[in-house]
This record gives sequence, C-alpha cells and structure tokens, in this order.
Amino acid sequence: MKLGRRDFLRQTAWMGLGAALAGGAVGCKSMGLTGGAPTAIGLRSKPLDKVRVGVIGLGARGPGAVHTYANLSGVEVTALSDLFSDRAENQQKWLKEQKEPDAAVYAGSEHAWKKLCESDKVDLVHVTTPWLLHTPMALYAMKCGKHVAVEVPAAVTVDQCWELVETSEKTRQHCMMLENCCYGESEMFALMLCRKGVLGELMHGEGAYLHDLASYKFSKTGYQGMWRLNFSKEHTGNPYPMHGMGPICQYMDINRGDNFDFLTSVSSEQCGLTQYAVENFGKNSPEAKETYKLGDMNTTVIRTRRGRTIMVQHNTTNPRPYSRINTITGTKGTLSDYPLRVALAPKAHEWMNDKELAELKAKYIHPLWDKNGDAAKRSGGHGGMDYLLLLRLTYCLQNGLPLDISVYDTALWSSVVELSERSVLKRGASVDVPDFTRGGWKTTEPLGIVSVG
Amino acid sequence: MKLGRRDFLRQTAWMGLGAALAGGAVGCKSMGLTGGAPTAIGLRSKPLDKVRVGVIGLGARGPGAVHTYANLSGVEVTALSDLFSDRAENQQKWLKEQKEPDAAVYAGSEHAWKKLCESDKVDLVHVTTPWLLHTPMALYAMKCGKHVAVEVPAAVTVDQCWELVETSEKTRQHCMMLENCCYGESEMFALMLCRKGVLGELMHGEGAYLHDLASYKFSKTGYQGMWRLNFSKEHTGNPYPMHGMGPICQYMDINRGDNFDFLTSVSSEQCGLTQYAVENFGKNSPEAKETYKLGDMNTTVIRTRRGRTIMVQHNTTNPRPYSRINTITGTKGTLSDYPLRVALAPKAHEWMNDKELAELKAKYIHPLWDKNGDAAKRSGGHGGMDYLLLLRLTYCLQNGLPLDISVYDTALWSSVVELSERSVLKRGASVDVPDFTRGGWKTTEPLGIVSVG
Repeated sequence: MKLGRRDFLRQTAWMGLGAALAGGAVGCKSMGLTGGAPTAIGLRSKPLDKVRVGVIGLGARGPGAVHTYANLSGVEVTALSDLFSDRAENQQKWLKEQKEPDAAVYAGSEHAWKKLCESDKVDLVHVTTPWLLHTPMALYAMKCGKHVAVEVPAAVTVDQCWELVETSEKTRQHCMMLENCCYGESEMFALMLCRKGVLGELMHGEGAYLHDLASYKFSKTGYQGMWRLNFSKEHTGNPYPMHGMGPICQYMDINRGDNFDFLTSVSSEQCGLTQYAVENFGKNSPEAKETYKLGDMNTTVIRTRRGRTIMVQHNTTNPRPYSRINTITGTKGTLSDYPLRVALAPKAHEWMNDKELAELKAKYIHPLWDKNGDAAKRSGGHGGMDYLLLLRLTYCLQNGLPLDISVYDTALWSSVVELSERSVLKRGASVDVPDFTRGGWKTTEPLGIVSVG
Repeated sequence: MKLGRRDFLRQTAWMGLGAALAGGAVGCKSMGLTGGAPTAIGLRSKPLDKVRVGVIGLGARGPGAVHTYANLSGVEVTALSDLFSDRAENQQKWLKEQKEPDAAVYAGSEHAWKKLCESDKVDLVHVTTPWLLHTPMALYAMKCGKHVAVEVPAAVTVDQCWELVETSEKTRQHCMMLENCCYGESEMFALMLCRKGVLGELMHGEGAYLHDLASYKFSKTGYQGMWRLNFSKEHTGNPYPMHGMGPICQYMDINRGDNFDFLTSVSSEQCGLTQYAVENFGKNSPEAKETYKLGDMNTTVIRTRRGRTIMVQHNTTNPRPYSRINTITGTKGTLSDYPLRVALAPKAHEWMNDKELAELKAKYIHPLWDKNGDAAKRSGGHGGMDYLLLLRLTYCLQNGLPLDISVYDTALWSSVVELSERSVLKRGASVDVPDFTRGGWKTTEPLGIVSVG
C-alpha cells in the first residue's frame, strides 16, 4: 500500500522507537482505507484478569484516579509518576495504608513518566497532566504496548488527533479520552431516553463548559506552571469542548451511524481575564497588560452528516453559574439540564412536574447507574461520574470489549479544539471536520446500552 | 448627487406614486452618506396632539391592537382594513360599543388597505398582516406621508430592509417594527441591569423563538392562506429572529455605539413538519410528501463590531416548552430567563435565591413597568408587553421624540431573515451584515432609560 508523506513520517518515527509493537488485539472489523493499518473500530484487546494501571500526573486529578482504581475489583495501581517526587510518594504511601500492593514510583524528572510507560507491570497508562503533554504521553504509552486513558482534551491539534488514531491502529492499543461527563447521572438518564427512542428522532443538541476559572487561572499554585493561563494567551476558539459535547455525541451515535460534517465558530473579545488582573493585580501589572487570545465566550455550531446540529459553548472567564447545558431535542420531546427538565409530546408545551420527572427517571435509569449508583456516589469524584467512567473502562479491559469512547471519538471530539480556533480566526468561516473513521462511521453499529455485567 | 441604479428606480417608483410627500420632520442629526436623503437617525416628527391610527389586518393580532389603542389617551383608531369585510366591521362595531369615535372601514378587496394609507384621517398605519405584505404596506404608508408600525418581521429580504430605510429617510416618516418582546417584564428588568452597569461590560447574549407551531401551521383556519406553512416550504435559515434578538440588541445598544459585523447560521434537517403531517394526515398525504425547506432548528451566531456575540435560535416544529432564552452575560454577572435567574459577581457561582432576586427586581424595575405595569397587565396582550409597546410608541409620536426601535433597528433585525438563509445554504459560511446606518452607529448616542413622562 502506497504511503502518503505523513504516513511515511509516522512510520519512520515509529520504527525508530523500537518499542514493543505486539499488542493484544484479537479482532477488528475491517481494514482501514489508508495508513496501512487495519481500522481500530470495534477494537477488542485480550481480556485482562487484572488491570494494572500506571498513573502519570498526581497534581489535581491524579490522586482521585488512584483512589478510585484502588477500590475497583480486578484493578491494581502498579505505578505512579509525577514531575515532583513527593506527589508520587504520597500516593504510594496512601496505597500502602490501604494495604494495596506496592506501586513503583517514577518521579522527579521531566522524562520519568517514560519509565512508567516502559514498565512490564503496567497494562493501562492513565494520563492526567497539562494539556500539551496528553498526546505525546498517549503516543508513547501505545508505542510501549500499553492501553492509554487520557484526560480531556486528548489532543490540541488535528495532526495530534490523526497521530492518536494511526498509532492506536498500528499498535492495536486502546486510546480512550477520559470524558467523565458521559457517565454523569443526568447525562446517562438522557442517554437512556435517546436509546429507547423516548425523544424521537434526535435533531439538535447543546453542550457547554461554562465555568468561571479566572481566579484559578491566575493562581500560582493551581495549574502547574500556569499552563491553562498560558494556553489562554496563545489560543482562541473552544479549547475544551468535550464535557458538553461528548455526551451529545453519544446520544446521537456519532461515529456509529452519523458523523460531524462541518462547524462554524465565533468568539467574543476577551475581557474577563484582563478585568480580573486589573482588579487583583493593578492596571499596570504584567497580568493586566498581557494579551489573552482566548475570547470570553465561544459558540461553535456543528452540523452532522445526517443533518443534526450541535451547539457547543465555552466560557471560563465571565461570572455565571457552572453549566454544561446538556440539552437534547428530538421529534418527540426535549431534555434540558441545569436544572434537569424533560418535556414530552403531546404535553411538551410545558416541562414535566417533579413527580412526573421522578417517575420518568426511575423508569429510564441507566443500568450503570441503577446497579452502581450508590457505590459511585460514595466514591465521590464529580458526583460519581469519575467512578463509573473507570469502572466501565476497566470492565471492558477485563472482558476484552470495545471501549465506550473509542480512539475515533477521542480524536473527533479533540479535533474541535483546533477546528474551532481556525474558524474563529477566519470570521466564523465554516470548516470541514475530518472523518477519522475513514468512512467507517457509515457501517459501525450503535453502541447500545452498556453495562458492567 | 449621483444616484445608483437602485436609488434611481426607487425615486422613479416614488415619484410615480404622486402621494403626499411632505412629512412632519422637524429635525435630524446628520446627512446620510449615500442615497440622497439625510439620515433618519434620531428622527423626530411634529408632535401630534392626537395619534390617529389605522390598523391593517384584523385576523390574529389586529383586534388586540385596536383594543389597546382605544384604551390609550390621546389615541384614536380612525380606520380599519382587512381582506374580509366582516373582520373590519366587527372591530368597527366594538369601537362603537365602547363609545369610541367612528372608524372608517376599508375592506373586502386585495387593495382596500391602500385607501387606508391614503386617508387624511390617519397619522400612523399599524400593519399586522402576513409576512410578505409587511414591507409593501409599510412602504406605501410612508409614501402616503404616514408613520408606520409594522409587525415582525418587517421585511424578509435585505433589499426590502434597504427600501424601508431609504423610504423613511426620504419621507421623514417613522418606520418601527412592533417588537413587543422589547417591552416584556423580564426583558425590561434585564435592560435596566444593563443600563445601570450591574452586569458590567456586556460580552454575550442569547435569544430565541422556540415555539412549537406545527399544528398551527397546518391549521386551515390559522394563518390566512396558510402563509406561514408556505414560507416554511420556500425558505430555510431563521425567518423569525427578532423576538429573542431584539431585546439583546437593546441591551447592547446595537446601532447606538455598536453594530452587527457578520453572522454564521446552521440549520438542522427538517423533520418536525413531515412527522406531524404523517401522523395527522397519513404518510401518503400531500402534506407528508411536501418538501419543507425550513430546518427544525436554526442556530445563528452574530458577532458585533465591538466584539460581542449574540446567539439566536429558531425552532417552531419540535416539541419543547416555549422560550425566548433571553440570556445576557457581562463581566459582572449573568441574567437568564425561562425561568428568570440572575447571578452577580462575586457570588456568581450560583443563581440568586428567590428573596435576593425579588429585591433586585424591585430595585431595578424599569420606569415603564414601575408606572404602567398594572395597567399593562390588566390590558393583557402577552403579559402586558403589547400595551407598553403601543403606549410608548404613541407617547413618542405625541411628543415628537425619536422612537425606541428606529427604522435602522427595524432593518437590521429583519435582515437576519435573509442573511441567515444565505449562510445556511452555504454550509454556514460567514456573511457580512450591511450597515444600514451607513456609519451612523459610531456616533449615535445610546437610548438611555426611556419613560412616558
């Protein structure tokens, strides 16, 4: 098969690594159309009796993941990595206190994480580091023959998205973005309404990340090296679209019968960060004089190939209550969130009352929440969604099942980071979205209603 | 001054009319840059002791206008017109019963309304007819030396928008679109928060017309000649953007210090009307086999020249509770509607509780609502907004004041009908919005807080 220039470069880099390529792939549906490797749609890997996890990044999100994994049966945290040794050692100590098996520590230097990826005690690398490190770490882990679960966004450029896809295809390793909001209580209730056809034919969805982070962005002890503020200086568009958009894509079976076609994206000017800096550091402070490219409000509209629309917003700098919007409208009804509301035809002229909603929620509770909701809530972590995310991920690895969020979902959802910025910079010009499945979305079966047994 | 081809055509058509051209203009701020006539920005007409109103269109919306006008002091309904004589006569009879002065009836033929425009007993022509008749009637009324108040949308093409502007400029007659939602209780509360700077620098607004009209559209006794269904067959985009967008434009002082720059618009496929037809008329019915171009959900994003964004939606075919969204976000807080909520920094991580909101509403009640709210609510008409709209309109005419919704607002808001369709048909390509003020928005003063004395 003839290779394009990029494929050639990829393969060259790849071969240069000399890492263990033999993944545990035991099946795949069809051959990819380009790139030389078969598709990873429906990828199943060899069932693992025990899922041995290595966690990279033990600042904000990592410790919660360590604690959740440690409490799952058939899962063991075997390796810990961070730039700072004390963070990794604290988690190591915590595991000891829980009478968990010893976990190796790889820490204290910029490249320590590579040793974790190379360890033969690790099956799954969990990456929860600053955004710009996600793709390099995910690629390296796969090239070391490890599955990878990577925090959002998994990638910040379209090229990185393709790299994730191509590397997963070549290595036969899973690459799943940790979109926890897909496992939220309201989101999984909405998902059930969609799966059961209660909302009819889905026409339009809305998601968002509306979360005032101005003070966090300027905190010197928050995001390591102030990486999130730095990203706001360098980029506009929607750098963080998936918390709201991911669940909508699952409602609509995107990549499994439908796919993104094009998007347009428009941002307002930036004002929130500068105002925060003026008020907190003075109008002559470097923070106040800095240029931040990220507009306060970004609105992106995606059209799918089957003609549905998805509106996605991002605002982390203006004062407003947290919301992911989470709205889905079909030909039989609408669900909206913050607060959760449902209206169904023929009574859709008003939202259901509390009693009707409670009954509907009881009737359409998702099996994952039905069976594991109590454990999820006890575990905490964003109201239980973090627990269900890792429960389902490790269950799939234990049973050799395809993952709920495939590498194609990971790539597609992440691609909106760069594509929205491109559109914003061209006065909202519409931008075509790459088909990372190379046509595979047309024949891929919907995910159906997943469970853990 | 050299005339362009279109100006020439306009002037020719104009002179051919032979109608009374002498308007009552007594002042205007500056000369227009093109078109030969001075600008109508800040247009004031000669104060009218009594405003004599002629109402064209006495089907759905007209009777309510007749009743409201009849109850306003210094206002008299002097003429009535409809295609159907009985409708006009019913209103004539009602006026008689109320001991109002006699009103002339011009009815029973397709051109009867022209006689109303030509009548020397009329100062203000109120147009509430099917969409496609709005502009022709408004133009004719102005050319007859009458002010005109025209239902939404005032125009359905950009060319019609320009015609309204140019004709108002030439005739010195007002042309105001009857955007009643600008006078809604929640909208005017939001307006006060904006005028008083409570929300800080405004960054983003959202409005919509989410109103399931599928059954109305197919009703043979609803929209005369089923004009609304017919428009859905012929056009996509957002044919009805102003109920949500108009108030946002007033919050942001659009045309008075800011203006639209460009917009992008994306529609979903159409499904709602066909599904309704299949379920109610059968899958082989002409209604079910018809092609409807109007997508179920349209999302339009506008960027202003000062860098704010406005998201506007339209959906009249999917089941969901009525909403105009009515959301405005600034650097100090956010207001959202359906239901009404406010969050203000530094406590903007959650919405105010009921008590705080009630206090804020009391503190920032708009003078129009404070002084006339009771009368408005007694009058009815969309919760009182229709009353305040006509109260304020006739007050301005009585006092020779510029109108709250100028011909430039009328044109700009209406232009989104065609511009959104153009964008939708080009895969969401961004479309520049004409500057109907020809630069005048840069120096026009904000409207401030209006009242009726």
